[in-house]
Amino acid sequence: MEKITILQQTETIFKKNWKFCIGTGRLGLALQKEYIEHLKEVQEKINFDYIRGHGLLHDDVGIYREIELEDGSTEAFYNFTYIDRIFDMYLDMGIRPFIEFGFMPKLLASGDQTVFAWKGNVTPPQDYDKWYDLIQAVVSHFIERYGLEEVLKWPFEVWNEPNLTNFWKDADKEEYFKLYKVTSIAVKDVHPDLQVGGPAICGGADEWITDFLNFCENESAPVDFVSRHAYTTAKPHKVTPEYYYQELFENDYMLKELKTVRELINASPFPDLPFHITEYNTSYSPINPIHDTTLNAAYLARILSEAGDYVDSFSYWTFSDVFEEADVPKSQFHGGFGLIGLNGIYKPTFHLFSFFNQLGVEQLHRDDNILVTRREDGSLAIAVWNMVLEKGDGFEKHFELDLPIQNNKDVFIKRQTIDENNGNPWKVWKQMGRPRFPKKDQIETLKEVAKPRIRTERTSTKNGRVKLTFTLTKNEVCLIEVNPINDETKSYIGLDDSQIPSYSKEWC
Amino acid sequence: MEKITILQQTETIFKKNWKFCIGTGRLGLALQKEYIEHLKEVQEKINFDYIRGHGLLHDDVGIYREIELEDGSTEAFYNFTYIDRIFDMYLDMGIRPFIEFGFMPKLLASGDQTVFAWKGNVTPPQDYDKWYDLIQAVVSHFIERYGLEEVLKWPFEVWNEPNLTNFWKDADKEEYFKLYKVTSIAVKDVHPDLQVGGPAICGGADEWITDFLNFCENESAPVDFVSRHAYTTAKPHKVTPEYYYQELFENDYMLKELKTVRELINASPFPDLPFHITEYNTSYSPINPIHDTTLNAAYLARILSEAGDYVDSFSYWTFSDVFEEADVPKSQFHGGFGLIGLNGIYKPTFHLFSFFNQLGVEQLHRDDNILVTRREDGSLAIAVWNMVLEKGDGFEKHFELDLPIQNNKDVFIKRQTIDENNGNPWKVWKQMGRPRFPKKDQIETLKEVAKPRIRTERTSTKNGRVKLTFTLTKNEVCLIEVNPINDETKSYIGLDDSQIPSYSKEWC
Amino acid sequence: MEKITILQQTETIFKKNWKFCIGTGRLGLALQKEYIEHLKEVQEKINFDYIRGHGLLHDDVGIYREIELEDGSTEAFYNFTYIDRIFDMYLDMGIRPFIEFGFMPKLLASGDQTVFAWKGNVTPPQDYDKWYDLIQAVVSHFIERYGLEEVLKWPFEVWNEPNLTNFWKDADKEEYFKLYKVTSIAVKDVHPDLQVGGPAICGGADEWITDFLNFCENESAPVDFVSRHAYTTAKPHKVTPEYYYQELFENDYMLKELKTVRELINASPFPDLPFHITEYNTSYSPINPIHDTTLNAAYLARILSEAGDYVDSFSYWTFSDVFEEADVPKSQFHGGFGLIGLNGIYKPTFHLFSFFNQLGVEQLHRDDNILVTRREDGSLAIAVWNMVLEKGDGFEKHFELDLPIQNNKDVFIKRQTIDENNGNPWKVWKQMGRPRFPKKDQIETLKEVAKPRIRTERTSTKNGRVKLTFTLTKNEVCLIEVNPINDETKSYIGLDDSQIPSYSKEWC
Amino acid sequence: MEKITILQQTETIFKKNWKFCIGTGRLGLALQKEYIEHLKEVQEKINFDYIRGHGLLHDDVGIYREIELEDGSTEAFYNFTYIDRIFDMYLDMGIRPFIEFGFMPKLLASGDQTVFAWKGNVTPPQDYDKWYDLIQAVVSHFIERYGLEEVLKWPFEVWNEPNLTNFWKDADKEEYFKLYKVTSIAVKDVHPDLQVGGPAICGGADEWITDFLNFCENESAPVDFVSRHAYTTAKPHKVTPEYYYQELFENDYMLKELKTVRELINASPFPDLPFHITEYNTSYSPINPIHDTTLNAAYLARILSEAGDYVDSFSYWTFSDVFEEADVPKSQFHGGFGLIGLNGIYKPTFHLFSFFNQLGVEQLHRDDNILVTRREDGSLAIAVWNMVLEKGDGFEKHFELDLPIQNNKDVFIKRQTIDENNGNPWKVWKQMGRPRFPKKDQIETLKEVAKPRIRTERTSTKNGRVKLTFTLTKNEVCLIEVNPINDETKSYIGLDDSQIPSYSKEWC
Repeated sequence: MEKITILQQTETIFKKNWKFCIGTGRLGLALQKEYIEHLKEVQEKINFDYIRGHGLLHDDVGIYREIELEDGSTEAFYNFTYIDRIFDMYLDMGIRPFIEFGFMPKLLASGDQTVFAWKGNVTPPQDYDKWYDLIQAVVSHFIERYGLEEVLKWPFEVWNEPNLTNFWKDADKEEYFKLYKVTSIAVKDVHPDLQVGGPAICGGADEWITDFLNFCENESAPVDFVSRHAYTTAKPHKVTPEYYYQELFENDYMLKELKTVRELINASPFPDLPFHITEYNTSYSPINPIHDTTLNAAYLARILSEAGDYVDSFSYWTFSDVFEEADVPKSQFHGGFGLIGLNGIYKPTFHLFSFFNQLGVEQLHRDDNILVTRREDGSLAIAVWNMVLEKGDGFEKHFELDLPIQNNKDVFIKRQTIDENNGNPWKVWKQMGRPRFPKKDQIETLKEVAKPRIRTERTSTKNGRVKLTFTLTKNEVCLIEVNPINDETKSYIGLDDSQIPSYSKEWC
Repeated sequence: MEKITILQQTETIFKKNWKFCIGTGRLGLALQKEYIEHLKEVQEKINFDYIRGHGLLHDDVGIYREIELEDGSTEAFYNFTYIDRIFDMYLDMGIRPFIEFGFMPKLLASGDQTVFAWKGNVTPPQDYDKWYDLIQAVVSHFIERYGLEEVLKWPFEVWNEPNLTNFWKDADKEEYFKLYKVTSIAVKDVHPDLQVGGPAICGGADEWITDFLNFCENESAPVDFVSRHAYTTAKPHKVTPEYYYQELFENDYMLKELKTVRELINASPFPDLPFHITEYNTSYSPINPIHDTTLNAAYLARILSEAGDYVDSFSYWTFSDVFEEADVPKSQFHGGFGLIGLNGIYKPTFHLFSFFNQLGVEQLHRDDNILVTRREDGSLAIAVWNMVLEKGDGFEKHFELDLPIQNNKDVFIKRQTIDENNGNPWKVWKQMGRPRFPKKDQIETLKEVAKPRIRTERTSTKNGRVKLTFTLTKNEVCLIEVNPINDETKSYIGLDDSQIPSYSKEWC
Repeated sequence: MEKITILQQTETIFKKNWKFCIGTGRLGLALQKEYIEHLKEVQEKINFDYIRGHGLLHDDVGIYREIELEDGSTEAFYNFTYIDRIFDMYLDMGIRPFIEFGFMPKLLASGDQTVFAWKGNVTPPQDYDKWYDLIQAVVSHFIERYGLEEVLKWPFEVWNEPNLTNFWKDADKEEYFKLYKVTSIAVKDVHPDLQVGGPAICGGADEWITDFLNFCENESAPVDFVSRHAYTTAKPHKVTPEYYYQELFENDYMLKELKTVRELINASPFPDLPFHITEYNTSYSPINPIHDTTLNAAYLARILSEAGDYVDSFSYWTFSDVFEEADVPKSQFHGGFGLIGLNGIYKPTFHLFSFFNQLGVEQLHRDDNILVTRREDGSLAIAVWNMVLEKGDGFEKHFELDLPIQNNKDVFIKRQTIDENNGNPWKVWKQMGRPRFPKKDQIETLKEVAKPRIRTERTSTKNGRVKLTFTLTKNEVCLIEVNPINDETKSYIGLDDSQIPSYSKEWC
Repeated sequence: MEKITILQQTETIFKKNWKFCIGTGRLGLALQKEYIEHLKEVQEKINFDYIRGHGLLHDDVGIYREIELEDGSTEAFYNFTYIDRIFDMYLDMGIRPFIEFGFMPKLLASGDQTVFAWKGNVTPPQDYDKWYDLIQAVVSHFIERYGLEEVLKWPFEVWNEPNLTNFWKDADKEEYFKLYKVTSIAVKDVHPDLQVGGPAICGGADEWITDFLNFCENESAPVDFVSRHAYTTAKPHKVTPEYYYQELFENDYMLKELKTVRELINASPFPDLPFHITEYNTSYSPINPIHDTTLNAAYLARILSEAGDYVDSFSYWTFSDVFEEADVPKSQFHGGFGLIGLNGIYKPTFHLFSFFNQLGVEQLHRDDNILVTRREDGSLAIAVWNMVLEKGDGFEKHFELDLPIQNNKDVFIKRQTIDENNGNPWKVWKQMGRPRFPKKDQIETLKEVAKPRIRTERTSTKNGRVKLTFTLTKNEVCLIEVNPINDETKSYIGLDDSQIPSYSKEWC
């Protein structure tokens, strides 16, 4: 039993860094109707500020082309037909691009090495002048179309995970620094106030952070922010044609990592730079079934609660299962990263984010399992979770909260729950026999069961305080809202529900 | 414990008479946006064929007017601006008008007596020739606008509850028969195949049925159908400024009534006429809180199940709380008839109709508490209910079904429930302190809790049969769907959910 | 020929007072779907800040009711069901209410006198204490629902045209001042920063303005703004059962009136008060066909151009033909005030407002027939009109403009026209045989022809200036936009349209 | 001057073969939002029955994959995630797939040769058994998802233009016949009533038709229809990096071709087979600017009018410029095939189809320039065009029609026009400086000018006949509708528009 007594006063702010940015499948997918529908739902319920994905310069978006002239020579042709359609759509939805420059257009690439089923080219430019021109053309076009004031708000990040050989040829650090310098100068040459950063590395190579910042200092490369990724799974211990199975580290593992890197930056020549986690999740694999589970939500709850202490943003990877890194999804549930699964079905982690989005700014209490906030209108909003990595039954967790209520009114308590039996379409889909390509009625059922369970009650307040006791099942995540009641019952003159057949006083 | 063993074979058809027609508040309200939104939802989820309401000729729809000519005389002016807008909308939604002629336009009325807060005039025409002209003009206009083929499908009913003094001056039977004859002839003079009927009486005066049919026979008045209403509450035993409280009769009361009247028709000069119940509900009062309860749904379940045995249609009164007979609603829940409450909140009875709409045509079993059907695709759909008129706790009801399953596959069972604790926004609204004019977040919560609870499971089949045991709480109504599973699990090579952290074999 | 040479520099601002407020039919109509659809289109294309109409306290909105208690006494019951639905909708559309308190609820009225087909009661309250309570309850409810910050932006105007006997019993000035004082104090007692004003008179009785402000000074009645109406037609010279025919004054008649009243205010004890024209139009009659004509647009163009010099706002009466003051409209076009006619058909005056909404803030030139502005992006936007009150043909007007173009680029000129032959659905409807209740295909045609004619061309610039010559037909209103061209033609290497069959160089 | 006198009687039917089918870019594009929006508009205004495009089996739709098993072997995996999403969407829009089997999945291909920017593989299967399995799996899945009754209505066509070396390796006829036989048997083995056909050749190789049908006869290959393509341009005489320029043949060239091939079929062993033109247009190039012109519409008018005499269907290639055969479009107008251009802008040919969709079934007169029909409601609908291949000005064409009008009423005439100056967004775009990636306000203007010009008038009838004289400018296409008027003018008592200021009798 966790007993918590919440004081009336606090000056702690719960920061919204968790909703600064969200990840997406490669930008070319943003032309698709289902992608756009999922993003619309995410924005309505969670409303992120920025979106970041790979593939701005990949050949399906088609920005970099060459035209052959009459004399047989070629010249660059920059085609913005698709990227305009995509960014127009983002901005219409109230979300801004967090630009990632990559991967290499085939016509500019120095080699054939690619990553992902969609074959992003990961080799350095064969000609850095042409690359510089491309970066300038792209950034200039954005300003021409959207205005300088708007584009000054867009971070520009150079490449993705160059410390891995599959994302950057030979994980060649010197070559990356060269790319970074050319790119960042190309951006700043368009306008000096544009924000550029890197090195966008994945975990396990944090010496790159230090080296990168020293390089910027020594080589006078512009840098406005530092970026890194964070995942918390070990290498897969079992791999099938369709799935990766991996162990999870404890969830303070990620928090410690972020703290450590922040300290590295603090100790660097640029101690004041913002620090963005431009990707994070449990597993880095798009075919790990953990992403479809309730555990995923329960595990990440503490990250959303605490990671903002160390980083300026952290961007969940990704909002939707409209995603092709491991090929076209082979089944309704396939272990994809998405908050929303195929056919618009919410996964448990979607609700985790939606719950956090309903929290207040005033942080009254926080520990490993709970975050108590007060909203502007005086109501309390509490996120609470019971993450359990062990297998087996049981593991219930009991809570007793003693909460302050302004003006001593009775309260209306609304509790929204996702757990193994509620808001868990993955489980129902398994009961259905795991239909790969579900039919309309099956999709309808999966949508219906993908909603949180809601429980409500009315409780009386004593001396300006209310006591709440409740129990969380394994991997349950709850949002509990406590609203002082403006009771109008007495205004119904002569009201007596027990005069209704079937209803006694107790039922009403 | 009710134990039921269902045989494989049946030739009984479950008739859709229950969805032939739905009631509406006066037609003038059909201009309103909220009315139209509610009707749209009703049509999407239930899809009635016809809609019937008062007030076609009431002054707010504005059909009958007079124009003063230069010489000081007046002539009739028929204004179809509003009724065209209304009927265009109905037909766009796939619902046809079941016409009720009434009430009397002020300029044609012989007196001042009105009914309802909206003051429908209930006096005979001061000039039956002008009335005849009006009927002809109206019917002719419908044919001109919608085509004869369409209008031949519309029943025309003459007046509403003329056997009550508040709906027809002095409840004057002779005067009604006169009205009926003039009206029916006016209709038939437009086209002889148009369908006209009456006497639209409420219960308690069934001698009118016999008298009416004899009158038609003796006076050669055309008649194509017989209509009547049916409500099952006693007079109110308590009345407050906002509510009527009434006792309910047992629900076979209505079934017996319908049977009796059908026999009266059978014994009349027109034994083959269709018989339409053009209004029914528990209470006839628009401010009886019973309409907002789960009891209302549980009570009417048997009516939907069985009334089609006796009548060609029965029209639930009404689809929406956008309704003004007892003045503008004073509160979110006020005892209105609507399947949908103000602000688009589904009441329990909405789900009763939605559940019935998902039943199959093949009726495998029916008794007082359950209706088992098979759908065209071979799945079973079962409606089951536990209506309890007594006050107090308990009253659970246990069922054990032994069901035939084609091709012996495992089955996926989906059970949707409304009861006192699920799909019951009235209860949550009371917890909130009965807000009369709820705010957006309160409306959002009420919408969320107005959905049925859904439970799913997978069960194995033995020898082509499956056993289901379940318990219904007080006033619970369920839809249970049993779908044979097309199991694809084996196609996932190497699948093993127990490789996921937290999940053991038992959890998956 | 009007020749105008426009200088490059200006410091004159074209004020948006013309779009501060728009009139509406009585608030009860705001529940209707067609009303809401029209308002949505108006907001998309014109986007007014406020909306003002009669009937807030009329019985169909149903705010004031009384409940009978058990002891036989009654007490007030304030029902906000409908007004909440209406104001929620307004605010969702980005438009705020400009409150008009009126007319008298039947239960509070001291007499039976009514105005309009919808019977607004125009008698003083029988009990000023109950009236005070009502005003307080209403204003308090608005603050409770929408927040103080929001409601502080709403002007509260007391009554409508009390100087006319048909709008205020006996046009009793002393009684109005009493009503005003009680009402304004009731508002200020809720919060002292709320804005209240009057006397909302129609023209022809401007001594009321002076008397009213002296009264406020002498009796310490709060006053935050002065309001008045303005129409420019004489009494009808011909009246038929369906139409009023009236002569129009010259259109500077209204401008002079506004100037005069502004001077009256300046000379009063409250010289700094804002001055709102809370209604204006050509004719004050809802059945004058002039409202459906192109003349109406051409006539009002100068008002939109200049009235903002004298008044803080002027509110066109009204946005839609969903309107019932002269009964339910009897025909598609019936002389209603609306910018949008029944069935969503734009009238010429709609486009006048839409054209003005596309003007810039920088006013380069203005005279009786033309208003030349520059927009923030450097393009020019010109409204020009040729109002002709005389009958007969001819009356074309020629213009020659010499305009400054920044950076000397060629310009793309887009000219949108409404005149007797374009954007004139009234004319096409007459060709159709004036169908009162048009069918869907007729409505479709009327919608198609209700759009402006568009002409485009490309013109070259010389020395940073471009010359435009054009001719306006009788009653034509144009929006001319002049956009410097960012020419990309040369980037199409080898382009030659004359290589296409049928097209010679001249055609391309 | 063409003078035409139309008789009252006719028994000729104007067949709707022209709207049986429409072409589309490769199926993978059907996931995109803009594609779907364009198709929605096409269906609303034209409503084709079927849609046919390449790429069902291309790797981006992703149907054919292989999975590696634990023992190192592989097996086929059929992924229907995307094709289900696409066909669900088609059927929701009321359009059925006209299946084309092709191109070759990379994993099944015998070589590397590809066609188009999107690299469709055009080599035979490396293993015909696997191909047979694939076809069976695909067709079986369609039946499983959509039902046999539905899929029996889908034609299955084998490959695309195998007579061209770029579409089928070496244009190897024997290999194609082998492919055809295996494929058609695979289809028929799923269900013998499914319809299968070929050879889908382009023009210029009609001996394939004869050879193909003889092959089917000799080798007992099933065949249910014959298919072929038809384009009417010569080889390009000028090619730039962005455009093809080609000469057009006279437009009876195509009609003669169709007649000739129909005769070939008639003379074959299968004389009764249906004959489908599964692609046609002026130019076969997706970068020929002719597709953006008014000429394209004027040219094809006669084809729509007459081709149905010879073929059972002819499928315009294609409905939308969302198309990538020549890479991502580089500009707003780029010579694409689409009826609808990028950003939803209607091209002239869109209106040609929309005009034809409004014609009646009763064909009163037809010649090279005009098609006169009567609709069910008695109105006349006339398509008339003035195609001019010569360059230069002039070329107007005058018409005088003498038309029968039922019941001798006056008529309302609505004339919709597209020509070089109306409904021609290509021209306005050129005036704008050919912006490649237009901004929102430019797109808005292009949409506005992409609508037909509408002229209306009222004309009187004499002796049941009306005379129409009109002139068509170069490349003009018109729809003229002649509707008998139901005149209600007289019902407006006292009406006199000349009482309105500005309006004399002549204006009204």
